[in-house]
Amino acid sequence: MSHYYRLVVSCPDRVGIVARVSGFIASQGGSITEANQHSDLATGRFFMRYEILADSVALDAEALRRAFAPIAAEFSMDWALTDTARRPRVVLMVSKASHCLVDLLYRWTARELDCDIPCVISNHDDMRALVEWHGIPYHHVPVEADDKSAAFAKVESLIESAEADTIVLARYMQILPPGLCERHAGRVINIHHSFLPSFAGAKPYHQAYERGVKLIGATCHYVTQELDAGPIIEQDIHRVSHCHTADDLVRFGRDVEKSVLARGLRWHLQDRVLIHGNKTVVFA
Amino acid sequence: MSHYYRLVVSCPDRVGIVARVSGFIASQGGSITEANQHSDLATGRFFMRYEILADSVALDAEALRRAFAPIAAEFSMDWALTDTARRPRVVLMVSKASHCLVDLLYRWTARELDCDIPCVISNHDDMRALVEWHGIPYHHVPVEADDKSAAFAKVESLIESAEADTIVLARYMQILPPGLCERHAGRVINIHHSFLPSFAGAKPYHQAYERGVKLIGATCHYVTQELDAGPIIEQDIHRVSHCHTADDLVRFGRDVEKSVLARGLRWHLQDRVLIHGNKTVVFA
Amino acid sequence: MSHYYRLVVSCPDRVGIVARVSGFIASQGGSITEANQHSDLATGRFFMRYEILADSVALDAEALRRAFAPIAAEFSMDWALTDTARRPRVVLMVSKASHCLVDLLYRWTARELDCDIPCVISNHDDMRALVEWHGIPYHHVPVEADDKSAAFAKVESLIESAEADTIVLARYMQILPPGLCERHAGRVINIHHSFLPSFAGAKPYHQAYERGVKLIGATCHYVTQELDAGPIIEQDIHRVSHCHTADDLVRFGRDVEKSVLARGLRWHLQDRVLIHGNKTVVFA
Amino acid sequence: MSHYYRLVVSCPDRVGIVARVSGFIASQGGSITEANQHSDLATGRFFMRYEILADSVALDAEALRRAFAPIAAEFSMDWALTDTARRPRVVLMVSKASHCLVDLLYRWTARELDCDIPCVISNHDDMRALVEWHGIPYHHVPVEADDKSAAFAKVESLIESAEADTIVLARYMQILPPGLCERHAGRVINIHHSFLPSFAGAKPYHQAYERGVKLIGATCHYVTQELDAGPIIEQDIHRVSHCHTADDLVRFGRDVEKSVLARGLRWHLQDRVLIHGNKTVVFA
Repeated sequence: MSHYYRLVVSCPDRVGIVARVSGFIASQGGSITEANQHSDLATGRFFMRYEILADSVALDAEALRRAFAPIAAEFSMDWALTDTARRPRVVLMVSKASHCLVDLLYRWTARELDCDIPCVISNHDDMRALVEWHGIPYHHVPVEADDKSAAFAKVESLIESAEADTIVLARYMQILPPGLCERHAGRVINIHHSFLPSFAGAKPYHQAYERGVKLIGATCHYVTQELDAGPIIEQDIHRVSHCHTADDLVRFGRDVEKSVLARGLRWHLQDRVLIHGNKTVVFA
Repeated sequence: MSHYYRLVVSCPDRVGIVARVSGFIASQGGSITEANQHSDLATGRFFMRYEILADSVALDAEALRRAFAPIAAEFSMDWALTDTARRPRVVLMVSKASHCLVDLLYRWTARELDCDIPCVISNHDDMRALVEWHGIPYHHVPVEADDKSAAFAKVESLIESAEADTIVLARYMQILPPGLCERHAGRVINIHHSFLPSFAGAKPYHQAYERGVKLIGATCHYVTQELDAGPIIEQDIHRVSHCHTADDLVRFGRDVEKSVLARGLRWHLQDRVLIHGNKTVVFA
Repeated sequence: MSHYYRLVVSCPDRVGIVARVSGFIASQGGSITEANQHSDLATGRFFMRYEILADSVALDAEALRRAFAPIAAEFSMDWALTDTARRPRVVLMVSKASHCLVDLLYRWTARELDCDIPCVISNHDDMRALVEWHGIPYHHVPVEADDKSAAFAKVESLIESAEADTIVLARYMQILPPGLCERHAGRVINIHHSFLPSFAGAKPYHQAYERGVKLIGATCHYVTQELDAGPIIEQDIHRVSHCHTADDLVRFGRDVEKSVLARGLRWHLQDRVLIHGNKTVVFA
Repeated sequence: MSHYYRLVVSCPDRVGIVARVSGFIASQGGSITEANQHSDLATGRFFMRYEILADSVALDAEALRRAFAPIAAEFSMDWALTDTARRPRVVLMVSKASHCLVDLLYRWTARELDCDIPCVISNHDDMRALVEWHGIPYHHVPVEADDKSAAFAKVESLIESAEADTIVLARYMQILPPGLCERHAGRVINIHHSFLPSFAGAKPYHQAYERGVKLIGATCHYVTQELDAGPIIEQDIHRVSHCHTADDLVRFGRDVEKSVLARGLRWHLQDRVLIHGNKTVVFA
């Protein structure tokens, strides 16, 4: 099966970036199958993503990176070149709610999510049978309310052993310690069950019910040290009315959460999400 | 053309309310063309709305009210019986932005909004030609930053002269004084240009832009003394991305605002919105 | 746990139906937790659905039916009174695509679908492990292209043994024989992978791709003898663009299909869907 | 105010197009403010659109075209380079329904549609006052059922006198003669009041009502000689239920029609719509 190189760049905008990058790709014989660019006029920053048919290029990924490095330096680029032949490794973290987990495992099985899942980590043992049925190791790491540090040390060691590129909080319901957030900045994805910035924090559907909103939502975002305040990747909503109880909101919310998380994760895994301060550029 | 009686009721829930009310309507020969009921299980309150073909009933509206009053008393009902032959009177208040005004005037002309518009009040003179072209009187009441009381006294006297049932803040951009809000509780409708409770207060699209949300919204709500915190009637959203500037958000927002306000106002004018604490029951 | 009686009625509209039915319920002490009514002004037909707390009524379901029968006769009602204590029995039929099956099994596990699933029937053996993991019997009934009658005789005998109330074609991909459709009229639910009436028949996503539509959809409907032409229960759509291949449309479509089918089936199981000619009244 | 050059290209895909085009722009000092590309893998065709700050380029539009022509020839490009300093000229054609016209005139006034409107043509005189209030000439060209050729000759001569770039059928309700369609291929935009390909032809809302669909829609498309079958630019939908009459569908539909037409026209005027066989690439 064909594989692709993905070149993702952000840098200060100026005349000639596209010419230089596309000229380089062309000089390597590279066939570009998808190209996205964005000039942020407010901040003067430029973003681009190229998907290149690997077979059209003589160099391998590492050699291509070396050849591109001088251009990157000249334009002060933040950049990465990934090879889809190397599948990213995603650790899922869950608690007791299964809807996002079931959904992600289905999509993984259906090849909608192009990644390996080295393990699932949970503070409860409830999801073990489901996870193991999919042939994925399951780690039960209880989190004690009075001392969470041992648990999170264990979690972090499991993440390291798994060589995880991405950690997904698929309704994990525990707040990660700041150090862990910092060490994995831009690589931890959370699904929050509200339309942020409304209803940050606990029990958002009950907050929404009390306020009497007519739409509820969910937000997929990168985790930062500030709770529910990281860069937003994707959001969506579901219409509700006076007919619906707080439990109905929870039920509708499950559907929104799982589709928003799945979209956000898929884009992240395809290198379509570029972080820009506390915002994202999403080449969806 | 046929007219209708609309009976709107809320009361403590108990067995037999519907039987009693529908029995009364049937005993008058009343043909019910639309019926809505809602039992709020959390608060034990019951809500209903009946639309009755007026020609099917021998009594006129006032006599029907007198006949119904004992039932209302027995069940401790908050209630009203309106006659669509009497068109509600709606005063529009605007500032410089024309989108909601143009939209409401179009819908009024197209008979989507079944009301009279005795006048439009504005703190600027910009919309005069448009309003007068529709044959509606226009009152320019400037609001001075350092003393707003004279202006609002003038506004309130215009509202009274207009015998307004409903006041619509169609992007009026001024905060009404608490006394005016209180005296017209449940009758002043505002359109806020965000998906409340996110981004209450000033310049919500710019707040949304800064936060990097992926959906923007608008909220139609009743005005209370607490800014942007009254009962929500309707909300809707529009998808945005990194491609869009703050000006684009403002532009998309105009479309959401006008459709949300038009829906909310239409439902209000059809007696479809029942206030319940700080929430609404909307029999849409 | 509390159970409910659900009274569902359709009949020619006339003055006094609601008074008579609600009077009857009140006379039995019945506490109505949800009530929906609809008068179809075009056809003069009336529809209603009451949900009644079973514990509030002295009679059991059968006695309540006997007590109601004279009223039903007087108003020429089509009607049913169900008891939620008796869970409906749903047979799922699938082929090789798993997305709807996985979704329905998840919702069944999460108690979003209040039913028993006596078995799953498929013309392929692919889904056996998944189904049996949920503790549900799996019947593999191959359908030969040149003679399908034996297979469908077997299918119908399995449906009868399962005492199925409802049959769900969760992407079954075979056309049921007319006799089977007729014998189970109003009880066979299909998910069609297009926004009907566009793209009836085979390969709708490829038809949609060829036509260059900007939205794709899915339709949940009752099966009748005419292919893809039965009463529609629910529809929804997903936005697409020139960026998307026919395969992308298939992928987006899976999400739409499963949510549309789940909503339609849930409403059907809650007696919220009333068939009216080739249309439906859905008290959602 | 700054103006922009827009370069729009489609050609057979091959390695090096972007490098060549962006190299050319960079060599002219061109600052690219927006760039979109699309490789259609199914047909092997490539599409691109660049927006270039005019002040960053020394050449004027005509000189830039001459300089680019050899590259265009080398890659067998269909291409155009427009200058936003020259506003496109749009003739609106209407019948008796005013909703799209009111909406387009509002957006034009609010500078959402960057064009001149040299005139409005109608087969009825109803919209004259509205149009003339906006300072736009109004031509009443009655169309006789038994001989339409004289009317359409008059229409075409008005279009020519107006030097129209684009003709918008804003609910014109007459079928244009094939010759006129052919002579203005890719420049006549229609709004059809259904979710095509469902319900082509007359009275689509009534067709939709009869079929019992749960969503209605509208379609903005280029007019071709085959009725309602031209390349689709944009579509959208509105949810409906059994509660809604055919008249309600018409009312909801008006809102969908006007927003779909406004989006489609705006994109067309910004050179964001590239026709590709009977489909469109829309760089929205």
